[in-house]
Formats: sequence, structure tokens, C-alpha cells
Amino acid sequence: MALPLLLLVGVGGLRAAERSGGSSGSSSAMEELATEQEAEESHRQDSVSLLTFILLLTLTILTIWLFKHRRVRFLHETGLAMIYGLIVGVILRYGTPSSSGRDKPLSCSQEDRPFTTLLVNVSGKFFEYTLKGEISPGKIHNVEQNDMLRKVTFDPEVFFNILLPPIIFHAGYSLKKRHFFRNLGSILAYAFLGTAVSCFIIGNLMYGVVKLMKLVGQLSDKFYYTDCLLFGAIISATDPVTVLAIFNELHADVDLYALLFGESVLNDAVAIVLSSSIVAYQPTGENTHAFDAAAFFKSVGVFLGIFSGSFMMGAVTGVVTALVTKFTKLHCFPLLETALFFLMSWSTFLLAEACGFTGVVAVLFCGITQAHYTYNNLSVESRSRTKQLFEVLHFLAENFIFSYMGLALFTFQKHIFSPVFIIGAFIAIFLGRAAHVYPLSFLLNLGRRHKISWNFQHMMMFSGLRGAMAFALAIRDTATYAHQMMFSTTLLIVFFTVWIVGGGTTPMLSWLNIRVGDHVPSVEEMSESRWLYFRVGVDPDQDPPPTNDNFQVLQGDGPDSERRNRTKQESAWLFRLWYSFDHNYLKPILTHSGPPLTTTLPSWCGLIARCLTSPQVYDNQEQLREEDSDFILNDSDLTVTYGDTTITANGSSGPHTATTSLDGRRTKSSSEEALERDLGAAEHEVASRGTRLVFPLEDKA
Amino acid sequence: MALPLLLLVGVGGLRAAERSGGSSGSSSAMEELATEQEAEESHRQDSVSLLTFILLLTLTILTIWLFKHRRVRFLHETGLAMIYGLIVGVILRYGTPSSSGRDKPLSCSQEDRPFTTLLVNVSGKFFEYTLKGEISPGKIHNVEQNDMLRKVTFDPEVFFNILLPPIIFHAGYSLKKRHFFRNLGSILAYAFLGTAVSCFIIGNLMYGVVKLMKLVGQLSDKFYYTDCLLFGAIISATDPVTVLAIFNELHADVDLYALLFGESVLNDAVAIVLSSSIVAYQPTGENTHAFDAAAFFKSVGVFLGIFSGSFMMGAVTGVVTALVTKFTKLHCFPLLETALFFLMSWSTFLLAEACGFTGVVAVLFCGITQAHYTYNNLSVESRSRTKQLFEVLHFLAENFIFSYMGLALFTFQKHIFSPVFIIGAFIAIFLGRAAHVYPLSFLLNLGRRHKISWNFQHMMMFSGLRGAMAFALAIRDTATYAHQMMFSTTLLIVFFTVWIVGGGTTPMLSWLNIRVGDHVPSVEEMSESRWLYFRVGVDPDQDPPPTNDNFQVLQGDGPDSERRNRTKQESAWLFRLWYSFDHNYLKPILTHSGPPLTTTLPSWCGLIARCLTSPQVYDNQEQLREEDSDFILNDSDLTVTYGDTTITANGSSGPHTATTSLDGRRTKSSSEEALERDLGAAEHEVASRGTRLVFPLEDKA
Repeated sequence: MALPLLLLVGVGGLRAAERSGGSSGSSSAMEELATEQEAEESHRQDSVSLLTFILLLTLTILTIWLFKHRRVRFLHETGLAMIYGLIVGVILRYGTPSSSGRDKPLSCSQEDRPFTTLLVNVSGKFFEYTLKGEISPGKIHNVEQNDMLRKVTFDPEVFFNILLPPIIFHAGYSLKKRHFFRNLGSILAYAFLGTAVSCFIIGNLMYGVVKLMKLVGQLSDKFYYTDCLLFGAIISATDPVTVLAIFNELHADVDLYALLFGESVLNDAVAIVLSSSIVAYQPTGENTHAFDAAAFFKSVGVFLGIFSGSFMMGAVTGVVTALVTKFTKLHCFPLLETALFFLMSWSTFLLAEACGFTGVVAVLFCGITQAHYTYNNLSVESRSRTKQLFEVLHFLAENFIFSYMGLALFTFQKHIFSPVFIIGAFIAIFLGRAAHVYPLSFLLNLGRRHKISWNFQHMMMFSGLRGAMAFALAIRDTATYAHQMMFSTTLLIVFFTVWIVGGGTTPMLSWLNIRVGDHVPSVEEMSESRWLYFRVGVDPDQDPPPTNDNFQVLQGDGPDSERRNRTKQESAWLFRLWYSFDHNYLKPILTHSGPPLTTTLPSWCGLIARCLTSPQVYDNQEQLREEDSDFILNDSDLTVTYGDTTITANGSSGPHTATTSLDGRRTKSSSEEALERDLGAAEHEVASRGTRLVFPLEDKA
Repeated sequence: MALPLLLLVGVGGLRAAERSGGSSGSSSAMEELATEQEAEESHRQDSVSLLTFILLLTLTILTIWLFKHRRVRFLHETGLAMIYGLIVGVILRYGTPSSSGRDKPLSCSQEDRPFTTLLVNVSGKFFEYTLKGEISPGKIHNVEQNDMLRKVTFDPEVFFNILLPPIIFHAGYSLKKRHFFRNLGSILAYAFLGTAVSCFIIGNLMYGVVKLMKLVGQLSDKFYYTDCLLFGAIISATDPVTVLAIFNELHADVDLYALLFGESVLNDAVAIVLSSSIVAYQPTGENTHAFDAAAFFKSVGVFLGIFSGSFMMGAVTGVVTALVTKFTKLHCFPLLETALFFLMSWSTFLLAEACGFTGVVAVLFCGITQAHYTYNNLSVESRSRTKQLFEVLHFLAENFIFSYMGLALFTFQKHIFSPVFIIGAFIAIFLGRAAHVYPLSFLLNLGRRHKISWNFQHMMMFSGLRGAMAFALAIRDTATYAHQMMFSTTLLIVFFTVWIVGGGTTPMLSWLNIRVGDHVPSVEEMSESRWLYFRVGVDPDQDPPPTNDNFQVLQGDGPDSERRNRTKQESAWLFRLWYSFDHNYLKPILTHSGPPLTTTLPSWCGLIARCLTSPQVYDNQEQLREEDSDFILNDSDLTVTYGDTTITANGSSGPHTATTSLDGRRTKSSSEEALERDLGAAEHEVASRGTRLVFPLEDKA
């Protein structure tokens, strides 16, 4: 829904404006009529241009279906969207006549600086105008160039304020939490240290390239060091959506998946805040682009402030939503519940923006919090509703951005393609990625029990695609020469990585000997099995049957109990601390699961503990039943990929393990045991639960 | 998602504009900084104002829950949204300081008429401005009044282009088809003739009122006859959402429900097109507001053209979607299917707007077509996905509009409240409604087998609420004195009818002795029964246990077979013709149901018939299984109301009826029999199917 409504607003605005402008006077009916017709014409053109995008998306969807149907994996849907976008861009660029605009420069001059609103006196009537932006004198004739090209050009902030939030929220909401938390330390290291290292290395390399260009005479305008660093920040936001989709389809290793997905999600947040702090770097005095320690520390402070502020905003609204859904019986009315969930999640964005933080980052952490707490309080129907709602929004927004990228290569009117800069950028991102993946992995392996193998490191190196986030960051500011060159280069990098790297994932996986799932049922098989549509309670978060092969090769580890033991030891102390706090206090306060607060809180908090503990917790204790607190149904994975039968097979083959873990629960209750359970053994239980739910439904098919 | 994104666009636009405006020159860094800060301030204010709306909606949702929980029925959610809107409106109006705007009238004059885009030279730099609208000279100082009030004022076209489409589409998509078609003739009569009559009567009465006001000296500006007619058209759009919600909850008579719902849905379409044609009424020559036969017939032509054009657009995109979903295996990928469905439905709107028709009307008919054909081709998951998606959008959009209405009473700055006009309008809408309900019902009863009883007529008379559509039509053009007065009056009428009539529905129903369903389980009962969330295949479209009491009282009719016989005879020949065409040709071509085309088409079409008939049709024939073609799962009804247990009870109590109708199907195959089946007996079959699906799931609770 999000995406193309926006243009309509523009449309509506214009139309209304011209209508109210046209209908208020009765002196010159013909003139009115002309304005009215002009407005309608413009409205029509807007509709046509929006239709173009819808056509593009429809085509993409149909082709994706065909590809999935025929199991073509060399081209991902996003790559496809870009190709269609390119084609339409070429048609729009060279196929439409360049109509002359109606714009004329007014010669009257204002005194000081531009007003946001302007009142213009046109032969006795007053008209209101709003500021759109500055146009450099050389571009005035460009503005008049092509009406159609201008129609399909979106305001860059649209990406940040409308298209990215659902994508990012969906990423946070569908984070595979168990594997994410299992690898939390590594993910944080990759995301924070890695992005900073990558940004710094790319920035410096690019500064070298720019110096070289200046020497050769390829640079025709200013290009500062801060611009280079900004480019480093922009291009450090990885988006391995293509790779992850293929991982999902092939059931590649879940730990690698968690590392890549977790890194890329947090990565985006870091890159956004990093670029904001680089922009905020404003040295005092005359020499505005030299190094200034005070300004540097201010930038660091901005980074920390924005990041922690956005994090807090996201967490707070998530917690509020969890409390509201826990203490009301809203779950009797899934529609109200879903609407509330949607509004609260969206308010995070606005709250963060209103407080001067970054909405997109806040939305990410809100999504994670919602998945961790609120999700447990929702009714079963609302769980699937919220999942599906954000899944559709995410899908539409993502494909829209990628097809817009294709279009922008031809319709954006201020491209500056510099071969030296582009080649330099490709080398720089390669080196930047290498310089953070390998050294960081080495350092992490010193502390990790199950090492990140060389194959995994190569795969991470290979999966450094750039996507929607890099594009949105680059298009945000294309006012100067340097930014325009950066934007054009970013576009090319996105194209290259999505097509080449995306297409090369399957060969790469087999070349690197990374295990993928065994049985992949055909589409026909899938459509036949009715229960596909009734999936409830099945957890996609579980490992493919022969898990952790890479780790086992490395360490010679044996069977199940051994592995569980290992996962217990491997968890860092910080994480264990957090986990026990979360399990003992946060979960019982915010959800209906976990141990009763009356047992975990000190006795003098008795009254509060009784108030906050929901009656269901006691029931759960007795019934030894735990809410699926750590398992999110990620329908997309199951629907788009072919994983279901594997799950069922897994579940039915290991019922005794499930019983064991259920029995074990009867005697254990501390957070340590719960942690162990959640990290190690839970997949069997879930799988068996999945079977229980699935088979009765299958009977009906 | 739809609704408040829009403001963000404005926000984004402004922000980007000022940023790019600010960052291109390096000569005056301080000035740049000031602009940047100003832009950020404006962005923050925008976020705050949007947050206000979200807060409003959140509050509304929580209060609705409380009301539903405590089973308070005297105030509907929309009425509640308005009250909260009013409160916030008062606070904004009298609680915020009036900041002085930065707008200054520029004295430089353009030659002829305003340009849509303006380039302004500010001390050497060029800035682009876009036209927002004309401001009458007296209002120039009003513009500068209050920044916050301006922030919360939306572009009126937003309602038409963004908020109404999902509401109207949802109405079309969730039309209870069986009862709708059973009463098609009456509904069409009420919608077309009724609205025209109402519009004409209200228009003429208001013209009298206006004449009176002129005599008394209450009128300070022009108010033409066409304005009065426009008011008649605007205020003729009924929106009994409140009444229908209560009907749903109380399980009131389904035929009355169908009459009211069908009338109000088509009503909206008629009112929109009617108001467009009245606006299009442009007599030639100097005397622009006298009667002109040519212009009148042109208006009639415009009405017919726009209506049929919009109808065609909607039907065509619906049919295209049906064909695409039929002939691809997209149903294996519910996400793709849902996305395609959404995009295609939305493209209807744009297509209609691009062709100069009315998007909202096209969307309505698209919704009906999608429900009738495409819905059958969707996977089970997509069915609930699409339903739920549009349900959430509809819910958010509707409550947003109503809270905006509350807000607008205080924040709209051009209100003109004229007591005489308002009292006149209330009397006029009462008379207008009476003049179309009673005479039309009398005429319809001449032809109808089951008469519309007096009680029903009174209830229809009573249910003539005005809502979102009247508001959207009225706010669309508030440029002139007459239109401003019309807008203020419309607001008051909406408030009054939603609060008073909405609150009076339950007493009125019991006063008029209109039967309501028997067993209404409490919320606790509902939340306990787990299968509530697993509802699949349950049809809310079926009658409450003791159906058609009013008809039976009227005619002394007896048991089931008699009733079925009656429904058969009652259907008009036009409807029967359409039904057999639909059943024999359209359904088999567009869906997987109905008889094979090879049997219904003449033999020379053999090849085409074989290509178009899907293999499933033959299977269906053999298995005597029919797709749930005429039954839409309307989750909202079940979720928000308490109807499920009734269904199950009904289904399990009458299994032999179901068997009868299934047996009967073995020998009958003509469209006549299918019609009879669909109209009369199908509810039993569905009810039993519902039970079959529900019980296995209940086992797991």
C-alpha cells in the first residue's frame, strides 16, 4: 500500500490546487476552464506514470512466478525488477517527446533567503506557492526538458519516509531470533566494527582515487574528504536479500544465514547513523573541510546519541505495545489488535523523527522488540495477520525500489559517470569488505567455540551485495557534483552486485561445499499438499536435518547432547546475563510466558509481582506448556520456499527427543536451563508440535 | 498503511527541498544552517501532527475494545473517533499559540494566469516553487494565523485518492452476494432512482431555504441553484456503517441488511457521479446559472458516460485479474498472489482516473468483480490475506476520516454556520429520505413476492446516516461561500446522524420488532473457544437460525421447501438471464467452477471451450463438489461479532438438510437448479462444511 500512494498525493495536491484556484473567480470563465483542463491533464499524466510502475510490478510478479515455477535461480526477483525498470527507463527516455515546461523564471528578487511559502499577485488575485528546492543556474533549461521524465521522478525522501520503514520493520520482525541470539556477539561485531572499518577504508581509498582523478584532470568540481567518507558509509550498507532468498530456498546453513541476515540488518542502521554523523561533521572556522578534533568528537557523539536514541524509541514503543496487548483482552478482536499493532509500530517512526532521531533505525528495533514480546501476546489470527501485512508491504516496497533503481539509471537527469571513480569504487568495496570480514572473523574465532569456517568467511565476503539502503542513502542528497557522481556509481554497484553476485550464489555455495537441505519438493508436490495453506505453529527457524556440518568437520563433534552442551558454553557471558534478565523479568512482565514474577522478584515486590504476572503464567507452569516465545512463524520462508516437508519429516523422525526435552522441563526451571532448551533442543519440540498441527489438517485435503 | 503516509510525503518533500536548496552553495554557511534547521523544525512539526492522529486512532481502538468488551452499543467506533477528534480539535484550536507565518506577498505580478511552477531568483540563486492554490485577498492574514492548524489540515483530494478507495473496495469485496443478488432489483431502484429523487428534492428544498435566507438578509454572498443541487447530491450519499455494524452484532434480518448495505454502496457511486455531472453543468453564454437544455442533457450524458465507463473499468480489471489467477499457478505463492491482487485492484483506480472516469466508482465495481470471480481462483491463504489486508486498510481509513471530521469542526478555518440553512438542511434530508424510501418501497412491493414490510421501511428511513462519502464530497471544493456553508452543514449532519441515529439503532430495532439473532455468546466464551482463530470455510453469509420472520408473518409462509420455491419465483427475469449467462459462460471462463464450457458452448466452439475450461471443472463435476463460489469469508463479521457458535450449532443441528441438497445436486445440472441451490439451500451445506473444518482444529485446543 505504502509505495505508490505517494504520487497520488502529489497528484491530488496539484489538482485541488488548480481547482480551487480556478473556481473561485467568476470573471473569466474561459480562463478557469483552461486551468481546470490543464489540471485534469496533469492528473491524468500522474495516473499514467503510476500505472507504469504498477505495470512494472505486475510484470515482475508474473515473471517471478514463472521463475519460481521453473525453479530458475540465477536471477532474483529484485534483479528482475531492475531489468524491467531499465527497459521502461529506456522507453521513457528515448521514446517520449520532450515537451517544453511552462516554467518561466520570475525576475523579481527576494531580499535575503527563500521563504517556504510564497504569495504571488497575479493580476489582482493571490496565489500560494510552496518552495520545492534550489536549481543551479545551469540546470534551468534542464527543468524544462521532459514532462514525463519529471513525473516518474520521486522525491528522494519518499524512500526514507515511506518505502524503507516497512522493509526494515519486516526485517526486524522476522529476525530468526534463536540463531540471531546464538551469534549475537559476532553479528554485533560485524555490524558495528565491520561497517566502521569498511566505511573508513572505502572512504580513504576513494579519497586516493579522487586525488588521482584531480591529477589526471578527470574531476571538474569539488570533491571533499567528507564526501569520500560519506560514500564509504553509504556503500557499506549491505543488503544480501538475493543471497538470503536463495539460502532460504536451498536450506543452506542457518548459522551462516543468521550471520549474514543479522549483519545486514544492523548494518543498515549503522550505515544510516554513520552517514548522518558524517553530514553533521561541520568544522568551525573558515577551513570547512579540514580535520577538526572538536567536530570529529561531536560527530562521534552524534553517532552515539542518534543510535542509542533511536534504539530506545524503538524499544519503548515495542514495550508499550506489549503491555497494552498483555493487559487488555484485545486479542478477542484481531482486527483491532492488528490495527493497534500497526499504528504503534508506525508511531515509533514518527516519534523518532519528531525527537530528531532516525525513524528507520527506531523501526528496526521496534520490530525486534515486537517480535520478542508483543508477538506472544497477540492472538493466533493477529500473528499471521501482522506477519502477512508487513510481508506484503515489504514485498511491494522492495520491488518498487528496485524497479525504480532500474528506471533511475535512465530517467535521473544529473548522472555523472566517471570510469576512474567507478573502477576505484568497485576495488574499494572489494577491499573494504575483505578488510572487515577476514580480520574480524579471525578475532571472533579466537573467542568462539564453534568457529566461523573459511568457507563461511568466503561466502560472507561474496555476499556483500548492495541494495535498497545504499540507493536510498545515495539518492537522498544529489545536489552537488560529488554527490551526483556518488549516486551514479552506487547505482552501478547495486546493479552489478545484485545481478552477478545474486546469480552466482548457487554455484558459489556448491563450490564452497556449504551444506544445503536435502529434499526439495517440486512446486507440484507443494501445491498438492493442502496443509501448506494451513501451516500453523510450524517453525521455520529450525535447522535443516543434518545441522552444523561445517562445525562438526572443524571440531569433530558428535551427537545431539554434545552439541547442546556446546551451545551452552559458547554463549557469551553478556548474552547469558541479558538472557536471564529477559527470561526472569522482562518476559513475565511483558508477555504471558516465563516463570511467575512472584518467584523471580524479591519478596518485598510481592504486590507488584502479583499484579504484573498474568494468570496464564501459572497455568503454563502447571501444564509445562510454554508459549512459542522464541519462535516466530515466518510464513514467507515457508510459502516461497520448499521447506515444509523437510520440517515434517524431521519432526516425525525424532519424537523421543521431544519427549526428553519435555520431561527435562519438568524438573528444571532456572533461566540457565531455559536458555539451554531454547538454544539447543527446541527445534525438535517445535518440529513435533508442527507435525501435530499439520497432520490433522492434512486429513481434510 | 494508506492513510497517514501521505503527510509524510509532504514532509519529505519539504525537507528534501530545503536540504538540496541549502547544501549547494558554500558561500554562506550560516544561512545554509538556518535553512536546514528550519526544515528540520518543520519536519518535526509534521511528525508531531501525524503522531496526533495516530494517538487519536490508538485511543479510539482501545475505547472500541472497551466498548465491545462491555457490550456498549449506543456509540459506534466511528462516533467515538469523531468525539476524540473534536477534543483534539478544541485543544489545537484554543491551546496552541498562533505563530506568525513566514509568508509575505510578493508584489511582482505575472501577466496572464498563474503558472504551475515558478522559478524565483533570490539574490542570484534560483528556487523552484509549485502552485498550491488561490487565496482570496481577505484571507491573506488567515494564512498566517496558526502553523499547527495548517499542519493538521489535509489536502481534500487525499480523501478521494487515498482514503476512500480502500473503504469502497472493501465494501465491494465484502458484499454479501447471495442476499445482494436476491434483492438486486430493489437495491438498484433505491440506489439510482432513490438517490436521484433525494438529490432533486433536497436541492429544491434548499433552494427555497436559500431564497428565504436572501429575503431575511442572512445570505452574504452568491448561492446558485446548481450549488443547491450539488448539496443535494453530496448529502444523498448514505453511509449506514454504524447501523450495519449493529445489525451484524445483533444478527438482524439479512434481507434488510442486504437492502441497506447494497443501497448505501451503490448510493455512494451514484452520488459521486451525480455531483460530477452537476459540476459539469456549464450553461453557455453569459447567464451561467440559468437552466439550459443543452447543458442539462450534456450533464445527463456525462452522468451516463462516467458511470458506465467507471463500471467497465472496474469490471475489466477484475476480469483480467481473474484470468491471470486462473491460468497461472500463482496460487502456489500466496505472497505473489496477494501482491498481484492488490496491484491490479489499485490499477483500476488509476486507469479510471487516467481515462477521465471516477476511480472510486471503478474500484467499487472492481471489488464486486474480484469477489465474484477472482476470489474463487485464489489460494485459501490469499483469500484470507486479501480480506484481512483490505479489512485493516478499511478500518484505519474509516476511523481516520471520522476523527478528521471531528478535528475539522474546529481546525477548518473557513466555516460558515448559518442556523437557517442548517435547520433547513435537516428538514430537507428528512423529507428527501422519506420521499424516496416510502414511494419506492410501495412501487417495489407491487412487483416483489416477499414485500418490504412497514417495519423495514421505517428502519430504512431511520438508517439514512451520512458519513465519510458525504464529507469527502463536501470538503472537495470549499473555495466559494456557498461551498463553505455546505461543508459546515454537512459536518453537522454527519455528527448528528452518526451519534443520534447510531445510538438509537438498538432501541429502534426492538421498537420496530425486527428480529435479531438469539444466542449472543459473551466475549469470554468467544476467547475461550480456540477455533475462533481457525475459522476456515465458515460462511457468515448465512441467515441467522430463524430467518425471514418478517416475510413469514406477512405471507404466512411455511417451511424450507416453500421458501426455496419462493426465492425461485421472486427473482426477476433480468436477473435470471444474467445469472444463467454468468453461471454457464462467465464463471467457467473466469474461474475453476461452474459447468464445463464444452457442455454449455455450441459445438463449433469446441477448441476454445476446451482451452478455457480448467481441468478442475471436470473434477468438480465428478466429485459433485462446488467451489465456494458464492460465499465470501467475511472474517470481520465473525471476528468482531459473536456469530460463530450460532453457525456451528446451526450446522450440526441440520445435517440431513445438507445431505438433501447434496443429493439433489447429483441429478440437477442446469443453471436454473444452480440458481435455486445458491439462493435457497446453500446455507445449510456451508454450515455443515464449516463444522467439518472447525471440529478437528478444536481438538488441539
